[in-house]
Amino acid sequence: MSVKNILFSVLLLFVPISFAAHFLEWGELAVFITAGLAILPLAAWMGTATEEIAVVVGPILGGLLNATFGNATELIIALIALKSGLVDVVKASITGSIIGNLLLVMGLAMLLGGLRHKEQEFQPVVARVNAASMNLAVIAILVPTTVDITSSGITEATIQNLSIAVAVVLMLVYALTLLFSMKTHSYLYDVGVAETEAEAHTTKPNLLLWVGVLFAATILVAVESEFLVDSLEVATSQLGLTALFTGVILVPIIGNAAEHATAVTVAMKNKMDLSLSVAVGSSLQIALFVAPVLVLVGWFFGQPMDLDFNPFELVAVAVSVLIANSISSDGRSNWLEGTLLLATYTVLGLAFYFHPVIDRIG
Amino acid sequence: MSVKNILFSVLLLFVPISFAAHFLEWGELAVFITAGLAILPLAAWMGTATEEIAVVVGPILGGLLNATFGNATELIIALIALKSGLVDVVKASITGSIIGNLLLVMGLAMLLGGLRHKEQEFQPVVARVNAASMNLAVIAILVPTTVDITSSGITEATIQNLSIAVAVVLMLVYALTLLFSMKTHSYLYDVGVAETEAEAHTTKPNLLLWVGVLFAATILVAVESEFLVDSLEVATSQLGLTALFTGVILVPIIGNAAEHATAVTVAMKNKMDLSLSVAVGSSLQIALFVAPVLVLVGWFFGQPMDLDFNPFELVAVAVSVLIANSISSDGRSNWLEGTLLLATYTVLGLAFYFHPVIDRIG
Amino acid sequence: MSVKNILFSVLLLFVPISFAAHFLEWGELAVFITAGLAILPLAAWMGTATEEIAVVVGPILGGLLNATFGNATELIIALIALKSGLVDVVKASITGSIIGNLLLVMGLAMLLGGLRHKEQEFQPVVARVNAASMNLAVIAILVPTTVDITSSGITEATIQNLSIAVAVVLMLVYALTLLFSMKTHSYLYDVGVAETEAEAHTTKPNLLLWVGVLFAATILVAVESEFLVDSLEVATSQLGLTALFTGVILVPIIGNAAEHATAVTVAMKNKMDLSLSVAVGSSLQIALFVAPVLVLVGWFFGQPMDLDFNPFELVAVAVSVLIANSISSDGRSNWLEGTLLLATYTVLGLAFYFHPVIDRIG
Repeated sequence: MSVKNILFSVLLLFVPISFAAHFLEWGELAVFITAGLAILPLAAWMGTATEEIAVVVGPILGGLLNATFGNATELIIALIALKSGLVDVVKASITGSIIGNLLLVMGLAMLLGGLRHKEQEFQPVVARVNAASMNLAVIAILVPTTVDITSSGITEATIQNLSIAVAVVLMLVYALTLLFSMKTHSYLYDVGVAETEAEAHTTKPNLLLWVGVLFAATILVAVESEFLVDSLEVATSQLGLTALFTGVILVPIIGNAAEHATAVTVAMKNKMDLSLSVAVGSSLQIALFVAPVLVLVGWFFGQPMDLDFNPFELVAVAVSVLIANSISSDGRSNWLEGTLLLATYTVLGLAFYFHPVIDRIG
Repeated sequence: MSVKNILFSVLLLFVPISFAAHFLEWGELAVFITAGLAILPLAAWMGTATEEIAVVVGPILGGLLNATFGNATELIIALIALKSGLVDVVKASITGSIIGNLLLVMGLAMLLGGLRHKEQEFQPVVARVNAASMNLAVIAILVPTTVDITSSGITEATIQNLSIAVAVVLMLVYALTLLFSMKTHSYLYDVGVAETEAEAHTTKPNLLLWVGVLFAATILVAVESEFLVDSLEVATSQLGLTALFTGVILVPIIGNAAEHATAVTVAMKNKMDLSLSVAVGSSLQIALFVAPVLVLVGWFFGQPMDLDFNPFELVAVAVSVLIANSISSDGRSNWLEGTLLLATYTVLGLAFYFHPVIDRIG
Repeated sequence: MSVKNILFSVLLLFVPISFAAHFLEWGELAVFITAGLAILPLAAWMGTATEEIAVVVGPILGGLLNATFGNATELIIALIALKSGLVDVVKASITGSIIGNLLLVMGLAMLLGGLRHKEQEFQPVVARVNAASMNLAVIAILVPTTVDITSSGITEATIQNLSIAVAVVLMLVYALTLLFSMKTHSYLYDVGVAETEAEAHTTKPNLLLWVGVLFAATILVAVESEFLVDSLEVATSQLGLTALFTGVILVPIIGNAAEHATAVTVAMKNKMDLSLSVAVGSSLQIALFVAPVLVLVGWFFGQPMDLDFNPFELVAVAVSVLIANSISSDGRSNWLEGTLLLATYTVLGLAFYFHPVIDRIG
């Protein structure tokens, strides 16, 4: 049992503690912190369960399962925040998940991997397809925001309609990227993944057991997300943080902790293809699947969720994609490149910390 | 005789039909549609005639002819729109031609080519020189627009002077790119073109015949462009479209249809060098030659044509160049990359469709 | 003795001439021009002295010396301008140094080198690490500026605090890039430099002599910079130039003349690795070391120097880095790519010339 597994097992204790904090009314701050800590191991268990089920049901169905459940934690937190009308927090957590995966996770993976291995290599063709997909995602966020800024007297409804149309395009593209990576060009993606699976599985996992785990973990994440979202506004203002900083920096770290651990661990084993597929794949999933789903769900339930972001969030996503693409597109990495990604994350984090107001232009 | 040739021959019928529509006063909408359809085969004939003449007069003179007449249709439509004072439509059609060639033409070529061939290759050095040239073109458009936005109380005359100076720089650069591709580094460009010409010509074409065709087609395009431009405003408002959408999306599709057909056809024959040289070359010609010519002609004839674009058009061109460069710079393509370009075109097209007002800041 | 050496020796005459101009009160314009011309050879002597001392004290200490004294002239001019409260000129000269090195120096090197050699090559890994570092530098400038623009009612103090925090991050990154290039990955940088040093030095240079030269040249540059800065405002308005144009275009040309000469000379000898390390290295040093030092010194001495730039300067730096990265990242260059960089410099120079007002938003 690895250090990571022991840590996540201990953190499971925060599930009952957070229930106590909520029902015994220990205060919003205590609920926020304990619920946040409780979500970490639950998200990890959801990830493990999804992967184990994927092994049983075969590569195609398993790939689809991973592609839809891979960011289930973020999706659940976002849906509950959306239901509570915290649209700005939802948008901020989308921004933050993309930034966090591209800069923090990929940066740590390249830094720690690069300290052990002088130069690390990965499939440049995959890196470029991913880079182009991330560029499309940036354009999709940029377009509604820029239409809003550059036109006077545009109505909410127009932005909403534009966002829905763009969301549909993004979901189609997401489906096509799955077709590309799992069917027509799967040979580009095979190496790292096959190896790891072969390593991990000597016996076939028990399907029923893991479906049960997935079910239980999903329910608990939903419940804990309720605690987290309900206590968010009071708790963060007690900590002296803005809602923007919380949404962009804190929430995504909670939702992505499991991916962080995986990406860094495999990078240190010099499996950069797998490491990047976790980090960049997670960003792509947020941008091309989770964000569009939230737009459509928000529209369905009458919550005005659109793709019109705060201009500074847009700038942050755009520059993150720019530097991540410029670093990854040659299929090689070293520790300095990891450091540059982390420095960018720090600079953006500082900016979100000092940013005083969410100022919506339009 | 190929399907393409039959189609273009049938479309020639719209030349007399559009004359009837104009003189018998069938209404603006009928004139607009029939003139648009009539321009399609005329543009194709102008292209064919230019190429045939180029074969007779030799590579240097022929190259220059192609370089100046290659986008003659767009230039004629733009000049007539400029004469009628439709400066915003002219700018929109410049934006739209660049976007259309980089996203729609290159996207279709990579998608349809990629469905037949798993991975397609082309000269990466040429792709990078083109990418850098397109970046310069974006900067040249960006600079007057940004100077306008970032300075309070700038006069029209200053923007006009700046635009003229920038236009002269761009035309010099265009001349130097011709020197590069036709003389000092022509070996980089030779492969695809030589092959195609060898294939196409077993007998020497008749110079006089083709000069006649070029002359007749040019006159007819001019006439039809008058019909198109005169009926444009009324017709598009009847269709419920804004002038911006018409200029950015509809007009360039009419002007570029012949290039579309060529680029896609050769891509399916796995001649990606030629396909990209048509798509990207056409964009470069618009940005480095047609746009500067229009600025200088507008200045000469007292029409205030400058390079100060609508900010959203600027954003659209910038992101198109960004994603096209990121996809083409490695010298390889596949169907998903084509799809990503088409998805970007769709997202931008949606934005132009929903964009309510041309809002000029300054 | 080369043409370059003779020229710089003759220019030394302007040191006494500028003293005469200042003390005999020949007018601000005469002082400005003669001081500017006097700084050119002094900067070159500072550079030579630094390199000679570096040979004696060994690669590690020498590298550090180069890394801190390499842009000493710019730093001295900027510090004196900062002391005089000319914060906007300081910022403009930072912008201008980055743009000038990336576009003018690198452009001239690639153009003149490319006229002699059909295609020139250099280390692509180094080019990419540099590209990523320049991207980080752009982001670091962009972030405070964008935070200012996108938030209403932000205080000067918040921008100042954010700038100081970002400056500390940049200096840390600069230290780590030195560690990377001089220690952990020094083999990537060895080729060109070792060769040149071996060529230049058959006998060991006299340490005491060169320390004396460095000391004398540094004192004189300080003195001449005083003359330059004091006469700057009156002189440039007599020339009909704005302070912005002077800061962005004229001052950096004076401060960087020596690097220009070196980068172009070695490029013509086909040593592109060395040429680019001078041009890009100088830009990086300005962005990651000189600019942060100025922020910290300004803060220490109560001058409100921050990283909140004029939006147009920001755009200029961003597009310069974009096109320079796109041209250099493949490790090859030719004369057209040099021309494209020079054309970009011309377009930006025209914009700064026509830009009427420094309009600070916020």
